[in-house]
Amino acid sequence: MVSSARSLRKIGYTLAEGVHLAQVIFEKKLPVRSLIVCEELLTDEARNSLSNLQTQSEKCFFLPKSLYDEISPVENGVGLISEIPIQSHSLDQTKYAEDALYLDGVQDMGNVGTLIRTAVAAGVRKIVTSPKTACVWAPKVVRAAMGAHFGATIFENVTAETLKESFEARFLAADARGGKDLFFESDWHRGHTVWLMGAEGPGLSDEALSISDERYLIPIEKDCESLNVAAAAAICLFEQRRRRKIG
Amino acid sequence: MVSSARSLRKIGYTLAEGVHLAQVIFEKKLPVRSLIVCEELLTDEARNSLSNLQTQSEKCFFLPKSLYDEISPVENGVGLISEIPIQSHSLDQTKYAEDALYLDGVQDMGNVGTLIRTAVAAGVRKIVTSPKTACVWAPKVVRAAMGAHFGATIFENVTAETLKESFEARFLAADARGGKDLFFESDWHRGHTVWLMGAEGPGLSDEALSISDERYLIPIEKDCESLNVAAAAAICLFEQRRRRKIG
Repeated sequence: MVSSARSLRKIGYTLAEGVHLAQVIFEKKLPVRSLIVCEELLTDEARNSLSNLQTQSEKCFFLPKSLYDEISPVENGVGLISEIPIQSHSLDQTKYAEDALYLDGVQDMGNVGTLIRTAVAAGVRKIVTSPKTACVWAPKVVRAAMGAHFGATIFENVTAETLKESFEARFLAADARGGKDLFFESDWHRGHTVWLMGAEGPGLSDEALSISDERYLIPIEKDCESLNVAAAAAICLFEQRRRRKIG
Repeated sequence: MVSSARSLRKIGYTLAEGVHLAQVIFEKKLPVRSLIVCEELLTDEARNSLSNLQTQSEKCFFLPKSLYDEISPVENGVGLISEIPIQSHSLDQTKYAEDALYLDGVQDMGNVGTLIRTAVAAGVRKIVTSPKTACVWAPKVVRAAMGAHFGATIFENVTAETLKESFEARFLAADARGGKDLFFESDWHRGHTVWLMGAEGPGLSDEALSISDERYLIPIEKDCESLNVAAAAAICLFEQRRRRKIG
């Protein structure tokens, strides 16, 4: 299975496994280069999705289970993969006055996908990733994001410095090592914000910390070291959403 | 790698890979049946952890990389696995007047581990899982929880009915399909609560819904279907924590 950023960008296509993704692709009328089908695995739901998608797809390949499993990004697939184009975006000279989420070196593909899904659900639709973050278009990331890629604009391979120049917003660092209490501090949710989320283990890089306007800490129990990055982002982004809705 | 609940419970031991888990095991003075080491992979940090742990371990096995990788629950291991006893707990006749988190059919091992980690970080230290949830002692779950297992009491294989009888608390269902707005509703955080979290895809089972006192919905953007279960739990449990700290 292809998962390196460079090879995916070169190919220009990625793989979306499963019924929910097929439904999103159908509803959003995204072009499908090919459908990859395993008759043996096809559930009734997947069969429905397949017949929906066939009109917007160029080709359809029927594979035996052994080959399908080789290609599929999930272990227990439903027999339907859509090959779809990657939607690449570049940060040009535009200055965005918008909310964003910056992923700084997040490696785990499940986490990257969950982060995109959570951000879009929280109304944060610009996602920016650092050069060391896993490729957002890897099939495992696409799968974990459950269609959120198509509700967002995603910029990859962006340094902290370039990020700072591109967004008219306050830069908030989520840092398990220290900072102000996320819940007690007021006013951070006003105006546009770019939340900076670091890698599993090391946390935010010095480059990312250096562009931050403020560091915030989620108050956790004393005998715990930290939260999973996707859990931490869910807490920050939905605390932002709560405050903006309720005040 | 062993991951089925039944075989793990029969063996009575699980595997904890990595430096952070080794540190937790060392600090908590947990018994170690054996250390599994791959010299070729050992980082400096892992070497330190190894020498710390050797005094509390019965045996030490040195394996070639190929064999280590077969056993390891992670792809890029650091060369150190601790074999530790499973801490099984049964719900007896005790009635717990405490907070808890109930996992109802959550299958993904990374999600189960993250859920335990998040709950303990939020101060919820009783974890209960339904018969269809992935085994909490599977090495991949232990790895994702990053030591949180040892800050919690975990009851496995518990039906919704038995859960209801065992906790003196209000049962709150997180339900993407409907319910009251988590952020707008007041007072749900008072007293003890048991949060019910459902499986990826189907959500809460009818059994779990039938014991709930109230259903709550996290207000997400209209074009999103739902959140990842671990992200949803992070939002609910930390909203509870925030309210109890701040009011």
